[in-house]
Amino acid sequence: MRNLTSASPEIETRGDTWRFPMDQPLTLDSGGSLAPLEIGYRTYGTLNADKSNAVLVCHALTGDQYLASTHPVTGKPGWWTRVVGPGLPLDPGRHFIICTNVIGGCMGSSGPASTNPVSGEVYGLTFPVITIADMVRAQAMLVEALGIETLFAVVGCSMGGMQVLQWAADFPERMFSAICIAAAARHSAQNIAFHEVGRAAIMADPDWRGGAYEAAGVRPEKGLAVARMAAHITYLSEAALQRKFGRELQRDGLSWGFDTDFQVESYLRHQGASFVDRFDANSYLYITRALDYFDLAASHDGVLAEAFVRARHVRFCVLSFSSDWLYSTAESRDIVRALNAAGCRASFVEIETDKGHDAIFLDEPALDSALRGFLAAAAEKRGLS
Amino acid sequence: MRNLTSASPEIETRGDTWRFPMDQPLTLDSGGSLAPLEIGYRTYGTLNADKSNAVLVCHALTGDQYLASTHPVTGKPGWWTRVVGPGLPLDPGRHFIICTNVIGGCMGSSGPASTNPVSGEVYGLTFPVITIADMVRAQAMLVEALGIETLFAVVGCSMGGMQVLQWAADFPERMFSAICIAAAARHSAQNIAFHEVGRAAIMADPDWRGGAYEAAGVRPEKGLAVARMAAHITYLSEAALQRKFGRELQRDGLSWGFDTDFQVESYLRHQGASFVDRFDANSYLYITRALDYFDLAASHDGVLAEAFVRARHVRFCVLSFSSDWLYSTAESRDIVRALNAAGCRASFVEIETDKGHDAIFLDEPALDSALRGFLAAAAEKRGLS
Repeated sequence: MRNLTSASPEIETRGDTWRFPMDQPLTLDSGGSLAPLEIGYRTYGTLNADKSNAVLVCHALTGDQYLASTHPVTGKPGWWTRVVGPGLPLDPGRHFIICTNVIGGCMGSSGPASTNPVSGEVYGLTFPVITIADMVRAQAMLVEALGIETLFAVVGCSMGGMQVLQWAADFPERMFSAICIAAAARHSAQNIAFHEVGRAAIMADPDWRGGAYEAAGVRPEKGLAVARMAAHITYLSEAALQRKFGRELQRDGLSWGFDTDFQVESYLRHQGASFVDRFDANSYLYITRALDYFDLAASHDGVLAEAFVRARHVRFCVLSFSSDWLYSTAESRDIVRALNAAGCRASFVEIETDKGHDAIFLDEPALDSALRGFLAAAAEKRGLS
Repeated sequence: MRNLTSASPEIETRGDTWRFPMDQPLTLDSGGSLAPLEIGYRTYGTLNADKSNAVLVCHALTGDQYLASTHPVTGKPGWWTRVVGPGLPLDPGRHFIICTNVIGGCMGSSGPASTNPVSGEVYGLTFPVITIADMVRAQAMLVEALGIETLFAVVGCSMGGMQVLQWAADFPERMFSAICIAAAARHSAQNIAFHEVGRAAIMADPDWRGGAYEAAGVRPEKGLAVARMAAHITYLSEAALQRKFGRELQRDGLSWGFDTDFQVESYLRHQGASFVDRFDANSYLYITRALDYFDLAASHDGVLAEAFVRARHVRFCVLSFSSDWLYSTAESRDIVRALNAAGCRASFVEIETDKGHDAIFLDEPALDSALRGFLAAAAEKRGLS
């Protein structure tokens, strides 16, 4: 069930795909269930003897389990090598770091590109609509299967941060601390609107074929690229776009045509074109839908604090970026207020940066030091050296 | 050349399409020229004896000359009936109001859907790439053809505001006052990025056919709808979207599918679907390109104030909306600073509203009173009763 590969000479990484038997289905919020459940995952580092050093990292919309090892499709370094690695806040030398591909995803976990065991065909749109809570329930099954009773920390950014909040609501007894970065307790109208543009772009592509493109041997690459381009704008602040690109041209002078005149156009087109190589269009539909459905208060009588009442023993850290307009500081403050109202211990740091939501993945020393400080204090309390 | 129709019992409106002869081409920034030049336009009210009451209103990206009369395609009221009408700031009883469809547009002015007189075929992408300055040069030709030497006011919002600034740079001697609402002196990287998403969506539609869809008897409606949806998000503030729609559902309960669950999704889809009935996809490409190329300082040695040095006699009013993130107050302040540096007289009002860029078209009493106040003072100076 496991294979050993190396991320870098320093990091031991394991993991592959965990297949649960048919009689261990995943219960879904939609009312149905999913079996067999498969979870693509990777681990970094070694679980200590008392199993107290496990950290679950939850990835963002288009992320995956390759947070600190080479991506098998793109060949690029992991998406969080600034945070996970030797000497970094999450250190495989001290922590046993687990990262799972969310269900609905396309990197080994059950999703719309998986084969429906009943029909023997690719699910496509017959895959059930899933939620953030479903994703978390699947993660909890894997964590249990790995023999871990209590996670030292559940850490996530963006959609991963929402999973962290959902963990605190649903499995607080299985976690010691929680770090929620650049997230929100619910999707706003603007968030939903941007996702709907992306879904409309995918569905407008004739190669989408009502979701059954696999059987037709085509892929809605153009539509998926447009979806990515639109979303990508929300990941950067206006200031960051201006600083990085401004009105800089690709060549000397304007083309007086519709080629990419401006560097920002070229950048966006590249983002779209490279995304389709590694991501499945139907997965994009399912995961954006899960995000849009996310409203943690709604499932707790409309009171966000109610979601956290069983998590009073958990040490929370909430982080936001000042220029993030996708999931703003105001939304992180709402989370902190609810945690406080529930009687939870919560640290809150707003990191001053003009890099926008993407600061998650960029060189941001203040993020580094906030994570280090919080994790060190939590480790001391937990009795980790 | 003119036909008389009635907008409402109160408003006299004239206009149709002005056709310039082949030997009066429009000179273009790209180096070429355009002939024959056609300009779709409408007028409201009557030119007074000394021709001192003419007001040119410049429309936004997807606007047209039907600012105060029923739109011939949609059957809807004009787009600025809150500002133009009896007893309103721009009053056909006092002003002779002219509004022209911009060149590149699709409501009667020369554009990519026009017939190329040389080939006898629809231009499509053989139409020349145009600029805001080209649009303004065409307007100036029509104003001259109408026998008007000096406009009492040039008024515009959004892209129309950019035309106002361009008027002040290129034809200051032909204007007495200028009102620039919710605009900018150049397109930012984020502005360009959103437009590039729209263009990519149109070009991704197989029915676009490299711009030659007319000949093929098809229209890239799906791509154009996605472009409109993406752009529409930028017209509303996050707060306005939240207030109008929040997470309100279309029906009781979630669909657990990909239909429009949320009202904001339904609203956006409706915006996209209704837009394609009245707008041409290639026009959308050309006009967004003109906007992206707009950088008034760049054509004046990089110093915006230099654009205004010949406009010291013009009375300027610059207006912005506090929650407008498409063309923000900061960008209006840049304009005002440049006007001041050039020695121009400029009033500046930031209107407090949570409605975003779309406040232009909405019930916004502060806009109304700012326009009234500025126009009354200008009329007194101009000797208009």
